[in-house]
Amino acid sequence: MINAFSTTFSIETRGIGTYEITGKIRDLVAASGVKTGVATILVKHTSASLLFFENADPTARRDLEEFLRRLVPESISYFSHTLEGPDDMPSHIRMALTRTSESVPVLDGSLQLGTWQGLFLYEHRRHPAQRTVAVSVLGEVE
Amino acid sequence: MINAFSTTFSIETRGIGTYEITGKIRDLVAASGVKTGVATILVKHTSASLLFFENADPTARRDLEEFLRRLVPESISYFSHTLEGPDDMPSHIRMALTRTSESVPVLDGSLQLGTWQGLFLYEHRRHPAQRTVAVSVLGEVE
Amino acid sequence: MINAFSTTFSIETRGIGTYEITGKIRDLVAASGVKTGVATILVKHTSASLLFFENADPTARRDLEEFLRRLVPESISYFSHTLEGPDDMPSHIRMALTRTSESVPVLDGSLQLGTWQGLFLYEHRRHPAQRTVAVSVLGEVE
Repeated sequence: MINAFSTTFSIETRGIGTYEITGKIRDLVAASGVKTGVATILVKHTSASLLFFENADPTARRDLEEFLRRLVPESISYFSHTLEGPDDMPSHIRMALTRTSESVPVLDGSLQLGTWQGLFLYEHRRHPAQRTVAVSVLGEVE
Repeated sequence: MINAFSTTFSIETRGIGTYEITGKIRDLVAASGVKTGVATILVKHTSASLLFFENADPTARRDLEEFLRRLVPESISYFSHTLEGPDDMPSHIRMALTRTSESVPVLDGSLQLGTWQGLFLYEHRRHPAQRTVAVSVLGEVE
Repeated sequence: MINAFSTTFSIETRGIGTYEITGKIRDLVAASGVKTGVATILVKHTSASLLFFENADPTARRDLEEFLRRLVPESISYFSHTLEGPDDMPSHIRMALTRTSESVPVLDGSLQLGTWQGLFLYEHRRHPAQRTVAVSVLGEVE
């Protein structure tokens, strides 16, 4: 039998950085009962993004954040969309350079990910925010 | 009952820029009858891409376009793939830095997107072109 | 009838570069029997990525590789995640700037891709490696 499951959840962020959500997605796949299929994850914002990244050594994520901070600095002088603060336009661009949705094959009830491959919500704004993530899981339940 | 719907549509572009297709995707989800599931969108080209972006203030998109124009300029001297014109290789790279496919959870018959989160076809070539987008919608129709 | 198919396959890489896997994905879609639906592909690593790119002229891919090599050079001095070698942190960032998963609508049993649009596994490490790709195909089989 095929099941179609769809839900949303919220996550509180505390400024620029990566927040792992792999465990939450695994729980939702388990809740769906799907054994063979696909899980789809989307962040419902344009100044936060999704990203698969190594989840073993946090220095790797800090290096990535520093790289993106330098590639898309707040100091760019030609930006005209500045009403929401100097961190807003860089947030949109850093989002555009990473991802909004990801889809993960499910096999034997498990997300098909590598050993140290985690899914992160990447907050690009400086201030704390509540972010919403949408998740659907489709597939065979037996 | 589970339905599987798949189609394509065309869009005429008028040079470099972002063209919103959110409304078209919403129409196709409605046409599919799917209430709980997932919509998948793919642009069938390698010099145009997809991108979720803020759809309220067009200056945000212009700032993004300017950023990518400077990050991947037409003037790069080491490019060897130049037969199709100076805007061709930058188009492929700007596509590579954004997205080709996106998947969106569907809940209660609605695309799960944020209030000002729109899906855009991002044209990277200078000349007008006809672009094709493929869309599938899968899920429970009742 | 709706079918849900999920599997993995391996690919041997021989250093930095792009390795086409479009044919393999087409074979798996055929094996699934799905005529109308969606194929999802994910690379189970954080120092290799996926990318749709032109597959006609290999110079286009070499230009892309050179661009990313210069955008994220091994010589960045502020990297602190350096234990796995100088090519490790650039690999993670080049992965973050391209893609981990892609989803492709299936119509009449065919992947909906453009004529010269191929899917590539993008190896970012210098040494040969065995990479694993997860694939699921969902949809109507008749």
